[in-house]
Order: sequence, then structure tokens, then C-alpha cells
Amino acid sequence: MTFRLGVIGGGQLARMMVPPAIELGIDIRVLAESEGMSAAIAATGVGDYTDLETVRAFAKTVDVVTFDHEHVPQAVLRALVADGVAVHPGPDALQFAQDKLAMRERLGELGIPMPDWARVETPDELDAFLADHGGRGVVKTARGGYDGKGVRVVSAADQAEDWFAALAEDGRGGALLVEELVEFRRELAQLVARRPSGDVTLWPVVESVQKDGVCAEVIAPAPGSAGKVAEMAAHIGTTIAEELGVTGVLAVELFETTDERILVNELAMRPHNTGHWTIDGSTTSQFEQHLRAVLDLPFGATGHREPWSVMINILGGPTDGDLDTPLRQAAADQPTAKIHLYGKEPRPGRKVGHVTVSGEELDDVVFRARAAAAFFED
Amino acid sequence: MTFRLGVIGGGQLARMMVPPAIELGIDIRVLAESEGMSAAIAATGVGDYTDLETVRAFAKTVDVVTFDHEHVPQAVLRALVADGVAVHPGPDALQFAQDKLAMRERLGELGIPMPDWARVETPDELDAFLADHGGRGVVKTARGGYDGKGVRVVSAADQAEDWFAALAEDGRGGALLVEELVEFRRELAQLVARRPSGDVTLWPVVESVQKDGVCAEVIAPAPGSAGKVAEMAAHIGTTIAEELGVTGVLAVELFETTDERILVNELAMRPHNTGHWTIDGSTTSQFEQHLRAVLDLPFGATGHREPWSVMINILGGPTDGDLDTPLRQAAADQPTAKIHLYGKEPRPGRKVGHVTVSGEELDDVVFRARAAAAFFED
Repeated sequence: MTFRLGVIGGGQLARMMVPPAIELGIDIRVLAESEGMSAAIAATGVGDYTDLETVRAFAKTVDVVTFDHEHVPQAVLRALVADGVAVHPGPDALQFAQDKLAMRERLGELGIPMPDWARVETPDELDAFLADHGGRGVVKTARGGYDGKGVRVVSAADQAEDWFAALAEDGRGGALLVEELVEFRRELAQLVARRPSGDVTLWPVVESVQKDGVCAEVIAPAPGSAGKVAEMAAHIGTTIAEELGVTGVLAVELFETTDERILVNELAMRPHNTGHWTIDGSTTSQFEQHLRAVLDLPFGATGHREPWSVMINILGGPTDGDLDTPLRQAAADQPTAKIHLYGKEPRPGRKVGHVTVSGEELDDVVFRARAAAAFFED
Repeated sequence: MTFRLGVIGGGQLARMMVPPAIELGIDIRVLAESEGMSAAIAATGVGDYTDLETVRAFAKTVDVVTFDHEHVPQAVLRALVADGVAVHPGPDALQFAQDKLAMRERLGELGIPMPDWARVETPDELDAFLADHGGRGVVKTARGGYDGKGVRVVSAADQAEDWFAALAEDGRGGALLVEELVEFRRELAQLVARRPSGDVTLWPVVESVQKDGVCAEVIAPAPGSAGKVAEMAAHIGTTIAEELGVTGVLAVELFETTDERILVNELAMRPHNTGHWTIDGSTTSQFEQHLRAVLDLPFGATGHREPWSVMINILGGPTDGDLDTPLRQAAADQPTAKIHLYGKEPRPGRKVGHVTVSGEELDDVVFRARAAAAFFED
């Protein structure tokens, strides 16, 4: 027999699970949202992941179900589990990636260091929080945010008026999350994988450079992180994976503060942009490890192949969307650059690929990665 | 637009082209011999590659045609070229991989070092060659041999009686190839890639350990090859690629003789078993480079990521064909081993996968690779 793995969602994360599935002889099947998506090569079905019967029919064709994203509704997930389907990560864990208020509450119970935060149901509650935190804060919708969407820095509650109005209209007693505006030196990310049988494995903590709320560049490992920073990040990542019962890859986005604390910013329970460097830079990529994790296979080694790796995202620009020409130019100019394109139509700001370079000297690696990525910029 | 690459043949070589195609955003399409083949995930058609109309219809769906094997008939290849299809490698080059007599004649014209050889049409001619070469020789059918098939060590012409009979029955004036039995220290392989625009790139020469005429283990680079051996192998590989007009990957199998000569044994004009280590051990794998070559994209770097890589083939055994259990055991025991399974039903002696380990110390790398591969043996 062959392991049959089902992935719900046909985006680039599902696409990047395909090469390691091919390598390990795993039969990978994707339930895509529509035709021609990034993971189309493995799509065995197209359908609505919020529709239980669609998802149920797909689940019947595989041994294990996992995800390209965190948007499958709890009701669907719990019905699958009740059917006896192996779902990884499971709904009990996924709820904390789906609801930022639930995540903050749970991490608080676990004593995980975080920014100050509050659940706010009214503009008055938000203003009170702002007044206590220097007059500014970060407001987030509890659900549905990603890549800077659903996140807003505010200095007064009326700047989140539309979100309060939407909550009122929704009428389900929802609330917003507000967090203190952390003064951070830099952003880090800790990538972890955990198997259903309990094993946990980690990659080195990385530095993530954001532009406009989107991860732009990742340096692995984070410069100067050996020792205390790496230990704190690893401890936080391991604790969250174990206590929340995560199965599969978990990415913990972190702030390293100006006063040398490590605070949890966000969680993602799936392979993550800050881990794309592992495809080329680590003995086992986050995608291969995710497959091993959800199939409960023993983990591969997570050491880095070369001392440094730098990953830079390729975003669609305002022009005609031709990626062949920059691919040819980047390949000619930077033969050591590993170029990844996601088969997506370039649109402004859309992630359509990434570049990774690995090597001995960080400056040189950064230079080569930026030189390659620059051909894809307008 | 996206590059559309067509691969004729659905075996494991086509399968291993899929991951780099996904990574580079290349739309890969495979014409497979039957359903459920190794490269099924990319199969857009199933049909007979000896049938011109089948191949012609497939070629219309892609920009460039390449191959999983060398068996597409010259008539079909030349008709495609006449249609204006980009075929790489082209028929002028491929004929030398399809016909060992033509290959020997052409390499002789180029002054490439080879074993003594002769074209023999009759048992008497074969006996005469044997008498001149110590009473023994290697007889080969000019066409259709692979993995030790179509190759026989003989000490008298009657040991090739069946092949002569087949030639007579065929009635097309064919002949057999006979070669001296070379006393070699070891077998080497030089992997080369060449683009239509002329660029050539090489990986380090490797040592190939054969068992029963099949490549069993590859050590990259070949121990003790730095300097003269590597130079000779590189010169031979480059000369053949350029003079024969090869486009794509070329593997040159070599003998290193006991008197320190390098002689050409066989040619393959496609990614080759002796290059599988490059998937994990080189910055650019032979499969990615083959795609770049046939699409005439600039080449990726071919340096090795770690000093040593060892690749060991996994062959199907006489038992029930369960690969899940050895996969789980090998993963648990050897976390640094990169395990590749081809999605093929295990049958005795059939190549169903391979394992590669890379690292600093050769002894340790060999040990780990053999330990991982041993779980797949009976």
C-alpha cells in the first residue's frame, strides 16, 4: 500500500507539499477551491471546503487530511473527526490558529510571554486599553486576518469603527483583540513540527523582515541568536506545540523586544512563509516534515546544509505579469539561487514565488538572494 | 506565459523531473505508456510512443519535447523535428545513444578512448576478435539493451548463437558489437548538461559500484579523483556533449583501468542513475538542470552541498512488496537519509527507489546510506 494524503486547499503551500510527497512515494491529493490553482497538478477534486459533504467525500479518498490554510470551519473539522477521519492538525489545536482571542487566552494560561492584550467589545473598552498603553495599540479581528489584513495600528477607537459595526451586524457577540504596540528590535519565527505520537522537532529560529505587514525576507538562522534567544524561542515553540496538541508544522511568529524579551505575535498551524528556506537550506524541508508529521512517520534531520540561508519573496507587480524573462535573467545572473515560482497569475502584492540562497558568508548570501530577487521587481 | 515541457515516457526519470518543474513554475506534461506509471501525477496522456500520430498530438500541447528513455524511434523523432517541434536531445544526437555500434564508430572518429571493439556480423568474425583479445570479450546487441540486458561476456561465438540467429531472422543486415573485456579498477560516471545555445556544465565525476550489471551504489565525488582523473573525465564528457550535439543531460559511463586509463563504456542521453545523488547533494539536481537545458534556460550551480554524497538503489525483492514498513524503519533509524520511492510495484530486481546521504566524512556517509537502504532489503 501507499500512504494517501489529502490536502484541503490548493494554494502554494499545498503545491510545495507535492515535491516531497513525490520523493517519499506518498500519493498526495488536493481538494482545490477552483480550477488552475497553484497546486493543480495534485488536485483530484474542486469544491467548497466549507461544505461538509464536499469535504467528507474528499476525505473518503485518503488516509489522512491536512491543510493548505486554516479556514476550514470547526463544524466541518469536528464532523470529519466524528466520522473517524485522521485530521492533522485537529480541530482542538486549529481553533487557536483560527481565533486570535482564543489563542491569546490559551497562551496566557500557559504563561507564554506575549504583548499586553485585551478582548474589547466596545469602542469604550478599546479607548480604555489605549489610554493605559501610551495612546496607541494594534487592533485585530479575531478571525480571518492574514498578511497584514485584519490588523490595524490605532490611536483612537473610532479608527476601528467599521470593525465594531461589522461585529454588531454579525450579532454573534464577537469582540476585537487589541494588543500593545511592542517596541521590537526585530521579528523572529520559530518553526516546529510535532507528530501525533508526540515527537517534536525544531529548525533554528529565523529572522523575518516584514514590509507592509508581509514577510519579505527571512535570514536563517537569525543572526546573533545562538544561545539565549534560540533557547527561549525553542522553549516557546515546543511548549505551544505540545500544550495545544499541534500535529504537523507550527510556525510561531515572535517579537524580540528592545529590552530583550521574546513575545509571541502570531501562530500558524501549517508550513509557513518563514520556513520556505528549509526547502533548499535544511536536510528536511518544512513541507517534507509536515507530511512525515501528519502521517506519523519519524522525522527527518533539521540541520542546515550550509551555515546561512536567505529567502526573499517574489511579489506580483503592476506590470504585465511575465515571469519568464526575470526567471531567465535571474538564472543567468545568480546560478546558486534556488528560484521557486508558484504557478500563480501575478497581481500587485500577491506572493507568486520566492528565491533562496545558501552559503558560508551571510553578507554574500544576502547579496546573491537580493540580486536574484531584484529581477522580479518592477 | 509559462513554459510547457513534454516528457515522453512515464518512468521514474520523468517522475523525478516533476519536483523541479513544480519549483521553477514549469508546466510539465507526461505521455505515459500506461495508467498508474511512476510519473502518473504529471501524465496528461497515455499512448504508444512509437506511434507518430500519438506523439505528434502530445507534442502539440507543449513547447519542448524531451524523454524519460531513449526508445522513441528515429522516424518519429525526425517527423517531429520536420513539424517544427523543439526536441531535446534531438535525433542526430539520440541515434548514438540508441545504437551502440554507431556510438563506437562516432567516438572513434573523435579520438575518444574506448575499449577495443569490432562490428561482427558472423560467428567467425566474433571468434576472430576473441582470439585476438585473450579468448574473451563482451558481446552487446547494438540496440535495446539496458541494466545489463543485451550484454554478455563470452569466450566462444556459439555463446551468442541466439543473437546471431535473431539478426538473421531480422534480415536488416544488423550486426553485434564486441568489445575487449577491460581490466578495470572501478567504474566511474561523468554527468554533463548542455543547452541548445551551447553552454556546458558538469558535476564532479562519481564512482559507480555495479552489482549484476546494475548500478547499485554511487559515491560522489569518486574518491581520489581530484586532479588527473577528474580532468580526463570532464574532457571526455564535454567533448562528447559538444561533438554529438547533445541537449539535456548526458551520462558517460567510464572504466578506470588498472593501467590508469579512462575508457568510455556507455552513453545515456537523459538523467541517469549515477546522477540521482544530485537531487540532495548538489545545488542543482540533474533533473532541474535537464529542464533548464531543454528549455534553454541558464544553468544552475553544480557544486556539492556537502563534501560527500552516497546513493544506494532500492530494488524490489521477492517478498510482498510492502515499502511502508521499511520506509518507517529507515526514517526512524537514519534521520539524515533522503529516501526516494518511485511509486512502482516492487518486483524482484526492479528499481523502486533510492537513498542518498550527504556529509563530511565518507566512511560515515557510506555507513548511514547503507544502514538506511538495508531496511528495504529482504
